[in-house]
Amino acid sequence: MRNVRLTLAYDGTGYVGWQVQPNGLSVQTVVERAIRELTGESVQLLAAGRTDSGVHALGQVANFRTGSVIPCEKMQLGLQSFLPGDIVVRDVADVAEDFHATYSAKKKRYRYIIHNSRVANPFVRRYAWQFRGDLDSPAMHAAAQTLLGTHDFRCFESHFPNKATSVRTVLEATVGRYSHWPVWSQPNSLEQPPQSDGEFIWFDIVADGFLYNMVRAIVGTLIQVGRRRWTAADVSRIVAGQDRSQAGETAPAHGLYLVHVDYGGPRSPSTIA
Amino acid sequence: MRNVRLTLAYDGTGYVGWQVQPNGLSVQTVVERAIRELTGESVQLLAAGRTDSGVHALGQVANFRTGSVIPCEKMQLGLQSFLPGDIVVRDVADVAEDFHATYSAKKKRYRYIIHNSRVANPFVRRYAWQFRGDLDSPAMHAAAQTLLGTHDFRCFESHFPNKATSVRTVLEATVGRYSHWPVWSQPNSLEQPPQSDGEFIWFDIVADGFLYNMVRAIVGTLIQVGRRRWTAADVSRIVAGQDRSQAGETAPAHGLYLVHVDYGGPRSPSTIA
Repeated sequence: MRNVRLTLAYDGTGYVGWQVQPNGLSVQTVVERAIRELTGESVQLLAAGRTDSGVHALGQVANFRTGSVIPCEKMQLGLQSFLPGDIVVRDVADVAEDFHATYSAKKKRYRYIIHNSRVANPFVRRYAWQFRGDLDSPAMHAAAQTLLGTHDFRCFESHFPNKATSVRTVLEATVGRYSHWPVWSQPNSLEQPPQSDGEFIWFDIVADGFLYNMVRAIVGTLIQVGRRRWTAADVSRIVAGQDRSQAGETAPAHGLYLVHVDYGGPRSPSTIA
Repeated sequence: MRNVRLTLAYDGTGYVGWQVQPNGLSVQTVVERAIRELTGESVQLLAAGRTDSGVHALGQVANFRTGSVIPCEKMQLGLQSFLPGDIVVRDVADVAEDFHATYSAKKKRYRYIIHNSRVANPFVRRYAWQFRGDLDSPAMHAAAQTLLGTHDFRCFESHFPNKATSVRTVLEATVGRYSHWPVWSQPNSLEQPPQSDGEFIWFDIVADGFLYNMVRAIVGTLIQVGRRRWTAADVSRIVAGQDRSQAGETAPAHGLYLVHVDYGGPRSPSTIA
């Protein structure tokens, strides 16, 4: 059996999230259906991140076993022909027998976009969280640095405990202003200079794993720093306190993107974003 | 009676266009309804450009007469509270008695966005025309220069003749590649350097007026230049020939944006985009 890896981008607006749910259409359901249409096989997709309802993906990764002999490039085109326009197959690749999209992941990059403007933008309303008040993005960036390293992050975890451990290692956490919001051709925020007058605030975070709603809880906390209600020291204290009720509210789903999953191998198409 | 000018942005996806139509909801209908909810008055909006179904606006301008004494800033917030998220009031201003959004316009800027990529992008599908094949954007820019000046543009006019004259003056016509698509905080394409590797091709055109479907017919023509099927000389010949059937096909509506309307006065909020 081949082990096939898909790299997917999707607009999460119309879905209940990645995972199959009783209450609506999931991205997983729609992609599995396309695989069945193309190959005749009923497969179960394993994904790197279970994005919630309304959360978007630029580089979700999923894999499945198949007896199909369709070459990867044709499989990409074939699957796309059975998919709606809000789910795009960016890459199809044969991977090693033991590759598992969830458990083989070494680190993941999420990005949260805040549209920091007094006036709404009709083109952004599903793709960024509009926040009208002034936000001090350099203060948010400074506070984000306190997240770096290995910590017990249960203060940012919904439904604690839903994993064996809530210890995670944050490898990167940056906040910067840009004049636009992501398209995947754009390099990582690290590689492009922030623009001090941009009305979009990007929060990028890379970690070896994430707890449920962790990024959105961090954003809800950093917002209070941006409003100058809390300081970087408060964020440190919140992390040390390990109490979800002390952190900020969970930011809305529609500003969140799963940008990239790193499996530690050589640079692959899934590393574009 | 006050004469009030609105500057509007909208996502045209869900509308039959600006103008009231029997077959669906128009932007005009929805904005007039919001004015009625706020002021109690039934008004008729006059707009700078009658955008078609699916066409977007960053800086549409419309005006109406009102006996309301609500100050402009409160009117902006009030109208927005009665509008859906895909229509945004960017500015409200009192203007001179003789201001007419349609007839006072000195020039208008339209922008057409082509997403020139082999792989679709789920976030762009309603906001740019995806064109998979290679496009020579410098050749398109060179050909666009033949449009400058005063010409009879009936070769680019649908339903000719629907105006007294099809002579118009094109003041600017540029084609460049960018890594993103418009948000209104971005300066005009002229003011920002194009990026040779961007996957979005922006066509900007400024003229004293436009014929029905003119921009989309020009884009359908420039696409043939981008594909190296036609040259700049062919475009000159098409304009001189004054025959719609010799020009390219009408490009899809969803790549087109009414960016800005210039009334020749001092810099106003409607000149942001």
